[in-house]
Amino acid sequence: MDAQTSAALLGLVREKRPLVHHITNTVTINDCANITICAGGAPVMAGAAEESAEMAAAAGALVLNIGTLDPAQVESMLRAGRRANECGVPVILDPVGAGATALRTESVLRILEEVEVAVLKGNAGEIGVLAGTGGTVRGVDSGGCDGDAVETARTCARATGTVVAMTGIVDVVTDGERCVLVQNGDPLMDRLSGTGCMASSVVGCFVAVADDPLSGAAAALCAFGLAGERGAAAARGPYSFRTGLFDELYALTPEDLAGGARLEAA
Amino acid sequence: MDAQTSAALLGLVREKRPLVHHITNTVTINDCANITICAGGAPVMAGAAEESAEMAAAAGALVLNIGTLDPAQVESMLRAGRRANECGVPVILDPVGAGATALRTESVLRILEEVEVAVLKGNAGEIGVLAGTGGTVRGVDSGGCDGDAVETARTCARATGTVVAMTGIVDVVTDGERCVLVQNGDPLMDRLSGTGCMASSVVGCFVAVADDPLSGAAAALCAFGLAGERGAAAARGPYSFRTGLFDELYALTPEDLAGGARLEAA
Amino acid sequence: MDAQTSAALLGLVREKRPLVHHITNTVTINDCANITICAGGAPVMAGAAEESAEMAAAAGALVLNIGTLDPAQVESMLRAGRRANECGVPVILDPVGAGATALRTESVLRILEEVEVAVLKGNAGEIGVLAGTGGTVRGVDSGGCDGDAVETARTCARATGTVVAMTGIVDVVTDGERCVLVQNGDPLMDRLSGTGCMASSVVGCFVAVADDPLSGAAAALCAFGLAGERGAAAARGPYSFRTGLFDELYALTPEDLAGGARLEAA
Repeated sequence: MDAQTSAALLGLVREKRPLVHHITNTVTINDCANITICAGGAPVMAGAAEESAEMAAAAGALVLNIGTLDPAQVESMLRAGRRANECGVPVILDPVGAGATALRTESVLRILEEVEVAVLKGNAGEIGVLAGTGGTVRGVDSGGCDGDAVETARTCARATGTVVAMTGIVDVVTDGERCVLVQNGDPLMDRLSGTGCMASSVVGCFVAVADDPLSGAAAALCAFGLAGERGAAAARGPYSFRTGLFDELYALTPEDLAGGARLEAA
Repeated sequence: MDAQTSAALLGLVREKRPLVHHITNTVTINDCANITICAGGAPVMAGAAEESAEMAAAAGALVLNIGTLDPAQVESMLRAGRRANECGVPVILDPVGAGATALRTESVLRILEEVEVAVLKGNAGEIGVLAGTGGTVRGVDSGGCDGDAVETARTCARATGTVVAMTGIVDVVTDGERCVLVQNGDPLMDRLSGTGCMASSVVGCFVAVADDPLSGAAAALCAFGLAGERGAAAARGPYSFRTGLFDELYALTPEDLAGGARLEAA
Repeated sequence: MDAQTSAALLGLVREKRPLVHHITNTVTINDCANITICAGGAPVMAGAAEESAEMAAAAGALVLNIGTLDPAQVESMLRAGRRANECGVPVILDPVGAGATALRTESVLRILEEVEVAVLKGNAGEIGVLAGTGGTVRGVDSGGCDGDAVETARTCARATGTVVAMTGIVDVVTDGERCVLVQNGDPLMDRLSGTGCMASSVVGCFVAVADDPLSGAAAALCAFGLAGERGAAAARGPYSFRTGLFDELYALTPEDLAGGARLEAA
């Protein structure tokens, strides 16, 4: 996994324009739709249980995000996830706020048990909770994981059988054996609601076209983080940063990513 | 239908500030509220079946948008639509993703059967599906209609008994006999989530004050498209374009529209 | 209550970063999340009845906003509100559109009866309706209250046993006895969807750290209004204003607020 591979995957996203189906929260659903377009994908959000599986079967990737979950939505996620598995459509799970309430933690564990998840994308607190090694989650914000971040991510990947993409100042992407660290990003990304959700959407775009979920997830986080760096350069605060983040991801070329991706094996 | 009529209708929207009630999707609901304000209307979104009909009775127009539909929402749409019909409030229907799933197609057909719809605003794929002549819908994006666009729109208008407003590079507005082509717009509108939904909201504002739904729909698409042209001039990407689109629609005067509307009979 | 107290409270919000739990509408939920961050708080939106009370117990304040209410959401609000009361977590209620439909008016009255509300934040029409002295509400927009604004707010505060924060060109904050007038703000705030909802979120941030809800609510409206004044200075329309509003609130220092707060006793 290197910068050239990231660049090639961005080129593939732009060429194939994968349909990325989301069952997601109402807080950042618009951000997720627009960031998918800016990355090069085509978003669709068909959350009702009566159609979520049918739409999943037609998609290039399925993103499940529990940011404003309720039991009916979890049922819809399970139906869509199982169909995605049958059709070979990769599933990305964002366990927003796992650890903060029983409903969140239990719903994530149930999804992980009943659906084969390709990439589990969470913050350090959420991944620590799901690894079983401990983490702190306050509302939907990470208070960090107990112990070493790389080890926590590896433990979680092994325990869940997924590629874990743990976001933070340095992102950790691991399948339990291989591990890639992504340094791209900017502190302003933490001052805007929904950057975690948006990252999951971008991961969906890349995993839809990648042979390997680990490469797809790492490339996506490089691209999203690099757009954040560029957007932050001209920002006067979180909202002008938001405009820059979306515009810069839209403008990002494979060449830009080849030159700007900062990733290394761990 | 000409540019002067469009300008006069924009003046009426600004003068009367019609209340536009929406039962709509969670992806672009905020965009719909704000674009309604920028056009000159007053938005309200009261989706619960327990109040949707009461609010519809008080409104100048009712916009039904199935972007994130579920069966309970469709019931609420039917209640509100029937009440709107009783009260002489025009109904605009946006059949987002009709053709992509059975739930969407069936729900649109049911609404068209039980509610008198003034304007059916969709993309070429959706209108082709609803015309019965064929169309391609991928997620919520149009893959085009089979056969000639103007003929497809006319066929759909006759089949459904509505004014059809079919958006695309050129918008086609027809009641099955009369037909107006609207050339306003910019390709960046296709790179921003929700411009189709926003167009329906603007149509709602204009149809609320127009004697004739065809004139109202055509004028609305001219105004929205012209704002898009102006917003695109200073854009660096989809999000700075978004800011420009809203600001330009807000600033658009009847004189601007008289000079910039590009429409012709077909 | 003076500008120095407002400034000190802003400093406390920034220092303590209170968790502000929202059960709110789908139109402006993203705005509420981001304005909370810009004010200095940490937003969370956990609306499901299965977790809303658990999250409320962990929060610094609970904001209930009925903008897109339905009966299930009202139940969740009641559960969360009661738990917040048990835990000493202040509750802010935004009665969006009370007076416009029976569902809205009745739901607000039920919440006021079953939950101890610290601050009731509404526009003049809503507060007039809830005071029982009369007000006009069109959709979710205020048509004003019958009679004198300050007297209406005082009457509502006494009738409901809350601090009333009545927003308008001049905001009125009163517990029925003490009364503070806040002059900060800009007319563009009325041309952007959701500024009322955002004001409630900012009130949540300040009331979470204030000893006294009246001081918290007044300081919050000063800070939000001052950010609006600053954001309006460079705006070309409602959307560039939006960017400015969020960026300016994020950048606002206690010193700025000490110098710019315009409030007086009434």
